[in-house]
Amino acid sequence: MSFFRSHIVAMTGYVPGEQPQGGKLIKLNTNENPYPCSPKVRASIGRVVQAGLQKYPDPSATAFRMRAGELLGVGADQILCGNGSDDILTIVTRALVDPGEHVRFAQPSYTLYRTLAEIQGAKCHVINYNSDWSLGPDFTQHCDKLRLAFLANPNSPSGTTLPPEEVARIADALPCPLLVDEAYADFSETNCLELVAQNEKIMVSRTLSKSYALAGIRFGFLVAQPHVIHELNKVKDSYNCDALSIAGATAAIDDQKWLEQTRGAILATRSRLTERLRELGFDCVDSQANFVWCNHPEHSAKSLYQRLKSDGVLVRYMTYEGWGDGLRITVGTDEQVDALLGLLSFL
Amino acid sequence: MSFFRSHIVAMTGYVPGEQPQGGKLIKLNTNENPYPCSPKVRASIGRVVQAGLQKYPDPSATAFRMRAGELLGVGADQILCGNGSDDILTIVTRALVDPGEHVRFAQPSYTLYRTLAEIQGAKCHVINYNSDWSLGPDFTQHCDKLRLAFLANPNSPSGTTLPPEEVARIADALPCPLLVDEAYADFSETNCLELVAQNEKIMVSRTLSKSYALAGIRFGFLVAQPHVIHELNKVKDSYNCDALSIAGATAAIDDQKWLEQTRGAILATRSRLTERLRELGFDCVDSQANFVWCNHPEHSAKSLYQRLKSDGVLVRYMTYEGWGDGLRITVGTDEQVDALLGLLSFL
Repeated sequence: MSFFRSHIVAMTGYVPGEQPQGGKLIKLNTNENPYPCSPKVRASIGRVVQAGLQKYPDPSATAFRMRAGELLGVGADQILCGNGSDDILTIVTRALVDPGEHVRFAQPSYTLYRTLAEIQGAKCHVINYNSDWSLGPDFTQHCDKLRLAFLANPNSPSGTTLPPEEVARIADALPCPLLVDEAYADFSETNCLELVAQNEKIMVSRTLSKSYALAGIRFGFLVAQPHVIHELNKVKDSYNCDALSIAGATAAIDDQKWLEQTRGAILATRSRLTERLRELGFDCVDSQANFVWCNHPEHSAKSLYQRLKSDGVLVRYMTYEGWGDGLRITVGTDEQVDALLGLLSFL
Repeated sequence: MSFFRSHIVAMTGYVPGEQPQGGKLIKLNTNENPYPCSPKVRASIGRVVQAGLQKYPDPSATAFRMRAGELLGVGADQILCGNGSDDILTIVTRALVDPGEHVRFAQPSYTLYRTLAEIQGAKCHVINYNSDWSLGPDFTQHCDKLRLAFLANPNSPSGTTLPPEEVARIADALPCPLLVDEAYADFSETNCLELVAQNEKIMVSRTLSKSYALAGIRFGFLVAQPHVIHELNKVKDSYNCDALSIAGATAAIDDQKWLEQTRGAILATRSRLTERLRELGFDCVDSQANFVWCNHPEHSAKSLYQRLKSDGVLVRYMTYEGWGDGLRITVGTDEQVDALLGLLSFL
């Protein structure tokens, strides 16, 4: 069918990390939480299932927005809920960017930013990170056609975080809104939520996929000023979040004790993983997320990925055009990380 | 923030039917199924909850596509799954229509078609139905900028269905793809699935919200030729369907015995409701869906809606600019319909 928009035909589409269904691999490739979610989430979902699924969900996920607003110190009218934070990024792009206009993001980072720009028919400004994972003045350079900038903070695959003061400076200098993608912020020492009140151009997205161990239910949200949320609401599908995910997400964010314990476990394992990888000769970046980014001076990242996969451990091999490659290893349980380290110790 | 696309700021956004949360109203306004879903759906969702929600779902919902393909007589590669059929309509619009291009649909029909066109920055061709709910030659008129036509079949709010031969003729005559929105096809005597193999321009969307009593889990799908699905896959969010909805939807479509029984109950109640409304003096269209569309010669639709709501029964008051208004009443349980008819009998 030759009816598709030409840039859709020309693009390749986003390729998500491998999701082997039901296999026996140790899965350290898509930054899932290795621990089961809070039991309160399961109970809450179970109650909705028993009450019946025949009715439409609350289109604006009020229960979640009320509870999350209290916990994060923002108004419920500053929160937009999405079918995963990918849905949030999609909504923001569709609301701000016309075909032929420009979208900016750093490299290496989340490759979906490019896909979303391409679907929209927009042009990409790809700004390389400096070698110390800081961003140079190119990221804030003026451009008449620039409509949106994405910044993953903590960044993936590096796990590095720009301090809030630096993000505030970037947002001020940019001629367009800045989406701060905080998918991994619960594992970081800092976050940018407080900047939202200071600058209407700053939007902060979060997901429950990683820190709350709920990748399976697809729930993310955006924090922005109320008039920004108002416009974005026009673009989202009315019932973009289902009744089970709203109930599960609300129970999850309500259980901060669970989050604290799980985060503690993951951070402890992350330290151990980083230390041991360095002992094995890896160059390993200090991470503020639930994964570590590394390369080995004597073994190619691709060969290591393949060897680990054939031995039953799946990590993420990432390659970025014109930049280089590396391994992104999700922080699993201690047992999973020990299995990985055991395989690597024979290098 | 003045950064939004101008047509987003100018539009009002889609207004879904009222979704009172937890009230005591008899809810006959958004065409939900009044019966609980198959027990097999609840069991299947329960198993996923117990197995854990920390992993990403299968991005292409393979289990559902395999089973649905078998049942519907199409290949799994002819099916695209969505977060409700609204997600499917969104994906199709984004894949086919550039800003400034045109989208065509009939009136009165599903008002989301206009919203999707507006979000995309497209112009709308609104073609009025004839008084007998047929479509005239305007619907297939040539236009260089036309990129997509929507046809709800059965239509809402009328509940009327164009026969497949007529839909095939329309698709042949149109200069663009035709999305046949079969949200209510499980309640109809005919459907257009078999047309997909004959014409690459025909796409058929379905939802599990109505006939399978699963509005709460958000699951819909599209049937089209494989090369069409291939392009559309580039536009959908990778993980647009969550693990619970995939499991629930797969169990639902697998339980055709449940569907048969529920459909039988709804069709029997629909006959009784139609007959009794006519006895009460309503003009009532013969319906092929799970709702009926009616007007009373002596009472305004709006006043009837308000009176019923104040008495605890919520029906849908619909008004279409330049066309007129009416009541769309969902076929509920016999008890719900009796309560409605009891209130109306004092007219």
